Amino acid sequence: MTRHELVQQIKQKGSYLCVGLDTDIDKIPTHLRQDPNGILLFNKAIIDATKDHCVAYKINTAFYESMGVKGWHIMEETLHHIPDTHFTIADAKRGDIGNTSAQYARTFFEILPFDAVTVAPYMGEDSVRPFLAYADKWTIVLGLTSNAGSFDFQRQILQDGRMLYEQVLQTTSTWGTPNNLMFVVGATRASDLEHIRSIIPDHFLLVPGVGAQGGSLSEVSKFGLNADAGLLVNASRAVQYASTGTDFAEAASAVAMSYAREMQTFL
Amino acid sequence: MTRHELVQQIKQKGSYLCVGLDTDIDKIPTHLRQDPNGILLFNKAIIDATKDHCVAYKINTAFYESMGVKGWHIMEETLHHIPDTHFTIADAKRGDIGNTSAQYARTFFEILPFDAVTVAPYMGEDSVRPFLAYADKWTIVLGLTSNAGSFDFQRQILQDGRMLYEQVLQTTSTWGTPNNLMFVVGATRASDLEHIRSIIPDHFLLVPGVGAQGGSLSEVSKFGLNADAGLLVNASRAVQYASTGTDFAEAASAVAMSYAREMQTFL
Repeated sequence: MTRHELVQQIKQKGSYLCVGLDTDIDKIPTHLRQDPNGILLFNKAIIDATKDHCVAYKINTAFYESMGVKGWHIMEETLHHIPDTHFTIADAKRGDIGNTSAQYARTFFEILPFDAVTVAPYMGEDSVRPFLAYADKWTIVLGLTSNAGSFDFQRQILQDGRMLYEQVLQTTSTWGTPNNLMFVVGATRASDLEHIRSIIPDHFLLVPGVGAQGGSLSEVSKFGLNADAGLLVNASRAVQYASTGTDFAEAASAVAMSYAREMQTFL
Repeated sequence: MTRHELVQQIKQKGSYLCVGLDTDIDKIPTHLRQDPNGILLFNKAIIDATKDHCVAYKINTAFYESMGVKGWHIMEETLHHIPDTHFTIADAKRGDIGNTSAQYARTFFEILPFDAVTVAPYMGEDSVRPFLAYADKWTIVLGLTSNAGSFDFQRQILQDGRMLYEQVLQTTSTWGTPNNLMFVVGATRASDLEHIRSIIPDHFLLVPGVGAQGGSLSEVSKFGLNADAGLLVNASRAVQYASTGTDFAEAASAVAMSYAREMQTFL
């Protein structure tokens, strides 16, 4: 999907919501846990219930890999159920030497035709480049995450006074363009977001920390939006597990709609 | 596998060779490329041909994921073919927030019963801890890699004069012990290895850069070995693709034996 197409979707819907599909067998409604196709049925119902309110879906690969071969198959079927109008993200956090990253890019852009994949920056340029080589595909590099561990290395101060994550944003942004590169930016501190926007004003940011992870949508929107929206704000657990009863899909729809309505006021 | 068992294996065999299984359909012998089970047959033949000369196998997950569901199945079958005496590494370079890393740990320690998994450190402590929670399993954190991109971030100098990778080694080593934590250390510069040994004298190091990636086994051994050996030196392409003919297994065996014989002189 091109940037133009993504921006059009956001403007048409008045939403920059991304729904995360981190589906955990222990958290889906009881009546689906016994069904051998329970997770796939759950995902399809969540997609059907939320697609009018969101522009993107993010599949957290870990939750599928941990089911082995079967999980890889569910991931494939889930991806195929997402309408073509929606931007699809493999939240895989991959990254390795060039020939290995090329295999990961093949996995998430060809075998599983996602629009985007998340990539860890630690191994540097040649670990990121193979993902950027695909036309109309997106690489989403980890910038600043919202977990406690982000203080261990991402916020370490370099000799020149910058924090490591600032250098990751600055350096990595020269490898691609705002048309094929986004950044993961945790949303728990609005002041960070304002600062990050001064470094990368044009790029889309994938913000994973709203909802169960605790970020505020209004703060994120205030400091994160740019002329093209430039934000994809993800909610996973808050939408997927809005209800654990048989009304889970209606509940997910209601939560997604409520996020979307709030987003519309910020656009 | 415990450290004691791993060290015993190394001493018995006089080898600290790890054979990498980065199997690429485009590189295996022609007669196997047409076979629908070609990759699995190739892997089994490489394992059978090299098991007397090595103590570990490293499966690069990217090469299997890029075949989709089928690849995940081949990875499973390959792992099951490796003798229990050998240390098994999922070279997956995973890492995410805690609840997601827990899913990856489940994948590579339970669903696929590897002894070890490689982990990227960028997201910090809570992204690494879930892997360390498993008894007799190993977490292998990326320290200093040997690719060109290692200069982008890993060698950035921090305010206190250390390089980022040094801080990664120091900080991460406090999260585990030399009995459940190893580090990936690229082998292309012996001077780095000497310095790294001064920071983490006791930990095992997984050195991926010997062979096709160009490191020198004698230099790596001179500066990397400690009282328990403390090294796993990996060779992938140099062993797997030693010959592209029908004699590929014999050729792989000969290369592995030659590495092992050289290693014996250093132990």
